[in-house]
Amino acid sequence: LLTEGQRDGIDVVLVSPRNPLNIGAVARAMANFGFARMKVVAPFEPHWREAKSAIGAEHLLENARVCARLDDAVADCTLVVGTGTLTYRKPDQPVVSPAELAPRIAEELARGGRVAILFGPEKHGLTREDLSLCHLLVEIPTDARQPSMNLGQAVAVCLYELVRAEPGSAASPESATAPSPVASGNLDRLADLIEETMSASGYSPRTMQAANRHDLRLALRRLRWTEPDVRRALGLFRRVLWRLRPPKG
Amino acid sequence: LLTEGQRDGIDVVLVSPRNPLNIGAVARAMANFGFARMKVVAPFEPHWREAKSAIGAEHLLENARVCARLDDAVADCTLVVGTGTLTYRKPDQPVVSPAELAPRIAEELARGGRVAILFGPEKHGLTREDLSLCHLLVEIPTDARQPSMNLGQAVAVCLYELVRAEPGSAASPESATAPSPVASGNLDRLADLIEETMSASGYSPRTMQAANRHDLRLALRRLRWTEPDVRRALGLFRRVLWRLRPPKG
Repeated sequence: LLTEGQRDGIDVVLVSPRNPLNIGAVARAMANFGFARMKVVAPFEPHWREAKSAIGAEHLLENARVCARLDDAVADCTLVVGTGTLTYRKPDQPVVSPAELAPRIAEELARGGRVAILFGPEKHGLTREDLSLCHLLVEIPTDARQPSMNLGQAVAVCLYELVRAEPGSAASPESATAPSPVASGNLDRLADLIEETMSASGYSPRTMQAANRHDLRLALRRLRWTEPDVRRALGLFRRVLWRLRPPKG
Repeated sequence: LLTEGQRDGIDVVLVSPRNPLNIGAVARAMANFGFARMKVVAPFEPHWREAKSAIGAEHLLENARVCARLDDAVADCTLVVGTGTLTYRKPDQPVVSPAELAPRIAEELARGGRVAILFGPEKHGLTREDLSLCHLLVEIPTDARQPSMNLGQAVAVCLYELVRAEPGSAASPESATAPSPVASGNLDRLADLIEETMSASGYSPRTMQAANRHDLRLALRRLRWTEPDVRRALGLFRRVLWRLRPPKG
């Protein structure tokens, strides 16, 4: 059971939502379960802030942050969770049930992290590129014959799980001494630098660059870096690049 | 976790629903979680069977039973469960959480009973008279400042609870997709190569080399590399080193 303060450490991120009524319904579900931070990435309709379905949650739509790009929206988050059905794709990341997600999120918040839960557009869900920003995927156990959920309902089920009282649950004492989490934006900076190094050292043939970039983003998230790890790696790759391409003149 | 046969022993009963889109959304949530029996009592709109929101659940709307009165609708049920917020009323029946409801329903079905879960109209919820037909009430733990849920979302959360697997009740999907472990020797090869790169690029002052080597070994183990990660990193650092120290002659 997350405290109210902890719930403010969670962003609900809607990626390219199409129907303003769904955005409003998400806001209502968030208010029902005590969540307040909404981010909307590249919404299809400009006038979603007035969605009538946000009953009792109008303030939430007013305060929602809009971003043009998903990587900017999650740049300050240390744990990024993707949602959606995996019926038609093979996941690159670990997949957990909503029930398994709750303690994982509580642990991340306990060690000072910030969490984003991503929900994709109504028709297709999150893209492969969206998913490459995720540390973890959560799949709601839906029927294989009709796996695709309504957006507002999927958000309601996920958030319900996070506030659902679990008999005898508490953050594990280990989490207090766990290493500090890393913001998604810092991992992106490191990925950019490694990519430059790959290119400057002749490691990546041009035809492999897109595939390498994708794998690299996934790997960096899987590796559970700490801030000191990232600082050290940034320092090393900057140094290597400087040597590979000495400043001219 | 209810079996498919058991799910057919549960009726989802909508009492005087107003908006056909909500009825369709309920049908969709039912299909998502493998429920098929819907009853609609005294619907406000006559044309709800064509609701467009019943994506993938059109057959469910077609097969729904319509009743003029709630008592008729639940006449064949042995356990009738009312839903809704109890913020403004004092309940006469026992109140359980959705989590407590699941085993109670499983027990009822195991002994050959039939269960109805009632959802009231959008604005006011179930009346006192509706509630008088209930054995039990279930309350979703919503925020006191915004307790009233969207109809489709309330149904989704309740049905999700009934099919939700307890954590640890089956092989965890996380462990099934967990990356293959890496032999310690491979991590050491990588550590050596990174150390050489640090030295060749001038990253490490000589006095820091021992400390950096120690931190590096710890970091590589903490990062939970997979074999492909290690192969890729070895390839990159070999390439970088080759460029930093081109072979003489």
